[in-house]
Amino acid sequence: MAANTGRNRQPAGEREALYGFHPVMEAMVAHRRKIHSVMVDKAAHGERIGRIAKAAQERNIPLRAVGAEQIRSVSGSDQHQGVTASVSPFPVETWPTHFFREQGDASEPLMVLLDGIVDPNNLGAIVRSAHCVGVDALLIPKDRAVGPTPAVSKASAGALEYTRIFRVTNLNTTIQGLKKNGVWVAGLTMDAQQTVFQADFNGPLALVIGGEEKGIRPLVRQNCDFLVRIPLCGRIDSLNASAAAAVVLYEAFRQRQITV
Amino acid sequence: MAANTGRNRQPAGEREALYGFHPVMEAMVAHRRKIHSVMVDKAAHGERIGRIAKAAQERNIPLRAVGAEQIRSVSGSDQHQGVTASVSPFPVETWPTHFFREQGDASEPLMVLLDGIVDPNNLGAIVRSAHCVGVDALLIPKDRAVGPTPAVSKASAGALEYTRIFRVTNLNTTIQGLKKNGVWVAGLTMDAQQTVFQADFNGPLALVIGGEEKGIRPLVRQNCDFLVRIPLCGRIDSLNASAAAAVVLYEAFRQRQITV
Repeated sequence: MAANTGRNRQPAGEREALYGFHPVMEAMVAHRRKIHSVMVDKAAHGERIGRIAKAAQERNIPLRAVGAEQIRSVSGSDQHQGVTASVSPFPVETWPTHFFREQGDASEPLMVLLDGIVDPNNLGAIVRSAHCVGVDALLIPKDRAVGPTPAVSKASAGALEYTRIFRVTNLNTTIQGLKKNGVWVAGLTMDAQQTVFQADFNGPLALVIGGEEKGIRPLVRQNCDFLVRIPLCGRIDSLNASAAAAVVLYEAFRQRQITV
Repeated sequence: MAANTGRNRQPAGEREALYGFHPVMEAMVAHRRKIHSVMVDKAAHGERIGRIAKAAQERNIPLRAVGAEQIRSVSGSDQHQGVTASVSPFPVETWPTHFFREQGDASEPLMVLLDGIVDPNNLGAIVRSAHCVGVDALLIPKDRAVGPTPAVSKASAGALEYTRIFRVTNLNTTIQGLKKNGVWVAGLTMDAQQTVFQADFNGPLALVIGGEEKGIRPLVRQNCDFLVRIPLCGRIDSLNASAAAAVVLYEAFRQRQITV
């Protein structure tokens, strides 16, 4: 492990503690993080704990049975479900990369750009929905947004461990780059003229979803190729962020499946 | 107020404390609860606090400016946003009622039956999505399920205050009654043959959505007219409960709008 000189605010090469059944299990299966060790609650005898232990042993990952209090202390969470793992940080990628070259010319990627989601539970739920519709990449600004923390992996039911996450310095520059690569950029707003059901979500597509309170920022909005809204009956002027993301992602999925 | 004899586990006619901007504001607008008094944080000067105060004054509701600690103490929550209100309990209705008579013969109601949602945040998010697609009634079993608490109103962004909630003793009996009234009953399961996009959601419809961990119970499942699933790519075998509800509700909305 590299010596931490104290110069980095977020030390690279350090360890973090995943917790909960799904994050630890999916991290072992996905094999994208180094897993240094796994701890399970010595008092737990459920089928899930057995599966965690078996998976760790098969991979020669050091496994220890300890008290629940130690798991709580190491993971820093009450939601550990009797399981924690010491792992390398999530493999965040930097944009732009060889993404489009890897994808190949004929590909029609589906991407999600999040403009300022700050709640780990919302990010986790969005990551889970994105994984379930086969999103190819999830782009998050470096500032004023939550990153792929262990709490996000927990909230995603482990889907984070399979997801390609890119952190970008400037979302507007990123959007311009996407457009140059032939990607259509659609922003989800409350006051768009066309609904998600009227829009055409086929072809290479990036969906821009705004933060919990403020939605998409004005300049980001201007940079989108087109805007879409989720139709709303009743007296409430929005869905919650993760419900809205699920609706627009599944509408994209529906359209893209039907026409393939 | 009736004397509490101590015989009722959940005293009727008692007061509860709504908290947060949206629940308190929407309760005043919806006018379905008696609002005894409103408290706002005396140190808060936001536009929202001003709107709460104005709405209370217009309705001759006693208004007091107090310390944040008192609001926290009265509401029992840290998520009070500087606002709490002492209100009558949520007007839960009993099923069956005159629901179908009220609706009229030509109506094609959309209903949601929840089989064992236990997390107030999930119920709140589902109530919000249901409101946003114009669901006519939400049916919840009396046992082993969370009811319409202040926490649910908060998580629903106040949508609960406009929602008709029925609590039912036996979900299976309820489903049989719905079928006799010409309602199609569709259950959301993971292993259904047809997807929500292939199913026909037109006409009088009740969507049955299962609890967070176990899904729909076997007998409830058998009683459904047909089962539907949300298609999933990837390695995770389900969406979270509120994302799944949003997807199936909006697919019903999409189909019913298009064909009307």
